[in-house]
Amino acid sequence: MISIEEAQILITRHAHPLPHATVPLADTLNRTLAEDVASDVDSPPYDKSIVDGYALRAADFSPEAALTVIEEVVAGAVPRQAVAAGTATRIMTGAPLPEGADAVVMVEQTEAVAEPPSLGKVVLRAEKVSAGQNIMRRASSMRRGETVLAAGHRLRPMEIGLLAEVGRAEVRVIRQPTVAVLSTGNELVPPSQAPAAGQIRNSNSAMLVACTRLADANPVALGISRDERHELATLIGEGLKHDVLLISGGVSAGVLDLVPRTLAELGVRQVFHKVAIKPGKPLWFGVLEQDGQTRLVFGLPGNPVSSLVCFDLFVRPALAALGGQGFFASAAVAARLASAFDQRGDRVTYFPATVRNDAGTLTAEPLSWKGSGDLRALASANALLRFPAGSRRFEPGDTVEAVRFD
Amino acid sequence: MISIEEAQILITRHAHPLPHATVPLADTLNRTLAEDVASDVDSPPYDKSIVDGYALRAADFSPEAALTVIEEVVAGAVPRQAVAAGTATRIMTGAPLPEGADAVVMVEQTEAVAEPPSLGKVVLRAEKVSAGQNIMRRASSMRRGETVLAAGHRLRPMEIGLLAEVGRAEVRVIRQPTVAVLSTGNELVPPSQAPAAGQIRNSNSAMLVACTRLADANPVALGISRDERHELATLIGEGLKHDVLLISGGVSAGVLDLVPRTLAELGVRQVFHKVAIKPGKPLWFGVLEQDGQTRLVFGLPGNPVSSLVCFDLFVRPALAALGGQGFFASAAVAARLASAFDQRGDRVTYFPATVRNDAGTLTAEPLSWKGSGDLRALASANALLRFPAGSRRFEPGDTVEAVRFD
Repeated sequence: MISIEEAQILITRHAHPLPHATVPLADTLNRTLAEDVASDVDSPPYDKSIVDGYALRAADFSPEAALTVIEEVVAGAVPRQAVAAGTATRIMTGAPLPEGADAVVMVEQTEAVAEPPSLGKVVLRAEKVSAGQNIMRRASSMRRGETVLAAGHRLRPMEIGLLAEVGRAEVRVIRQPTVAVLSTGNELVPPSQAPAAGQIRNSNSAMLVACTRLADANPVALGISRDERHELATLIGEGLKHDVLLISGGVSAGVLDLVPRTLAELGVRQVFHKVAIKPGKPLWFGVLEQDGQTRLVFGLPGNPVSSLVCFDLFVRPALAALGGQGFFASAAVAARLASAFDQRGDRVTYFPATVRNDAGTLTAEPLSWKGSGDLRALASANALLRFPAGSRRFEPGDTVEAVRFD
Repeated sequence: MISIEEAQILITRHAHPLPHATVPLADTLNRTLAEDVASDVDSPPYDKSIVDGYALRAADFSPEAALTVIEEVVAGAVPRQAVAAGTATRIMTGAPLPEGADAVVMVEQTEAVAEPPSLGKVVLRAEKVSAGQNIMRRASSMRRGETVLAAGHRLRPMEIGLLAEVGRAEVRVIRQPTVAVLSTGNELVPPSQAPAAGQIRNSNSAMLVACTRLADANPVALGISRDERHELATLIGEGLKHDVLLISGGVSAGVLDLVPRTLAELGVRQVFHKVAIKPGKPLWFGVLEQDGQTRLVFGLPGNPVSSLVCFDLFVRPALAALGGQGFFASAAVAARLASAFDQRGDRVTYFPATVRNDAGTLTAEPLSWKGSGDLRALASANALLRFPAGSRRFEPGDTVEAVRFD
């Protein structure tokens, strides 16, 4: 039995970023950029107005000055006339600044005087006008040829906007991991089926598929395998076509634990089995190295809460590492315990709780929880409390570590 | 011009939860449950063992006691023999407890003595055995007929697992909002196209589609409309088939601001125009009430950073409200300013920054930012700082509010 940290270190040795793929910009959200991206444009492409108003020479300003309007330039159009002394050009947000002009006065600080059929005059109601005001200079955001995003950057909405601005309709990113999810156990039936005596429904598969989606990976549900050698080998073989295979059940110490044996027969090398954690002790981890690729296999305990804890501590960070974001476990926060908790045994314990913010202080209330099969209690939880190994009674008011779900 | 809070209140008056839909369990992640769900099973369905080991009568225990093994019960099987004095049943995790037994001893605390062809004996190496140990009682997690999840609950992975456990292959949820995204402006070309003089690429559409996805809503990209009445009317009409229409550009004070007029012609009623926020002042909001349904229309400023700020403050919470989760704006945290900042004017200002955690203290560094067209600077940001209206110099060390992106 190894510690949580030892297990995490062993996983990081095998969880390397996946190969690159070129994908449409719309499919890059939360992916990792796999190339340096240079701009093919100056941004802005010209000195532009950042307001709707009048472009003029700052030197022409005096309170109540009336300037002759010589042109209207809308966004998308190009000014054809230069602004000279005593004149101004009506200009829209984003439009290019006309030659000769060095400032823009907001339309709200002006008054238009109509003189049809000419464009009339504009009277300035501003208090002062400085050269450069309301102008964004050419290339002040980025210069053509300059690298604007480096490989390794995670693509959020603003990076996606930036990639669109520099003309990247397709982008090279680290491929999204695919994750096969397989539940094992003769006692399992699908959610649509009524369980007979001795049977329960397969809740882990739907849950792990959802966990995988939240981790920005692509789940493939393989259903249920009976504890039978041939069926297991077929479905595990199917699962090994994916970057990660999650097998739920079949890794505790019983006589029907065919899973590790079947994995070995299929070339999967065990890296570790059993971690000092409660729930989650039977966790199994192995790798298949084939054709220059590494497939990761997690044997998760069959109990849903154990599965969830193992996913959060080991699988989610591994998926982040495959996706190019590094192996980072969820950060814990400090909280004050609301009621006593008896921690026993030699394993770090994760226990469902409600954490609430009382005027800036986080207070944690352990839930009434019947053990790792009790998924219902977890629906009331918004955190797991982490208690260190070793028997000890924690009293109300003691500080404990909480890993929040949201 | 109204305040941010006034604008948010006006939006909440129209952002009601959408109608219900029955969807496959796999499609319910992050949706809101629209029915009370009762369990159709006892969980566990029988007294079950929570470890691999031997089921026995606690009263039979004495150190080194040897019990006759009468049966092996694997998970998914049902015990056929009752445990009597001096006997034990080999039992797997999750298997039903045999009649007569009242405790399970973990396999690790036992030693099997083979006596083929019988099942042999088991010698107990435990220090003590208490009645009820390692047993999870029938229905201790939930009882058949009991409501286990109430309407309004947000479905996370554990709730999805629980729904699978109680047999819900389909679930009634609040429908996911669909969001049409339309960019307007003669100056815009798609990302795949090289901009000519006076043109820029459409970055907002890709960015707002990504924002929508992160908000758990379903985006539909409508592309670019020129500032032309017929084309705008056609594309806005298309957009009004969706729960929400985001129009980027065309709402500032210029002569080409056809958008509000076109919306009015299509029956969209303006609720407000202009909010005291920088960037984002030209924000427009209206509603179309038709066939008992309310469509929300947001006219977002064309500058990408303004758009992003407006999305975060107004659109994202509105989408959460439509999805049944209530209108909640992003929470701000307190941070210490790392360098001076000059706040000017009568609008609340949002400014891109890097917030880092220095030994428990959050420190915020405003970025070098060229204004609301400067998307590049935002790629370095992980937060927006919020400065209150009114001219004031903020000094290094001053406490400011930060809205974090992650």
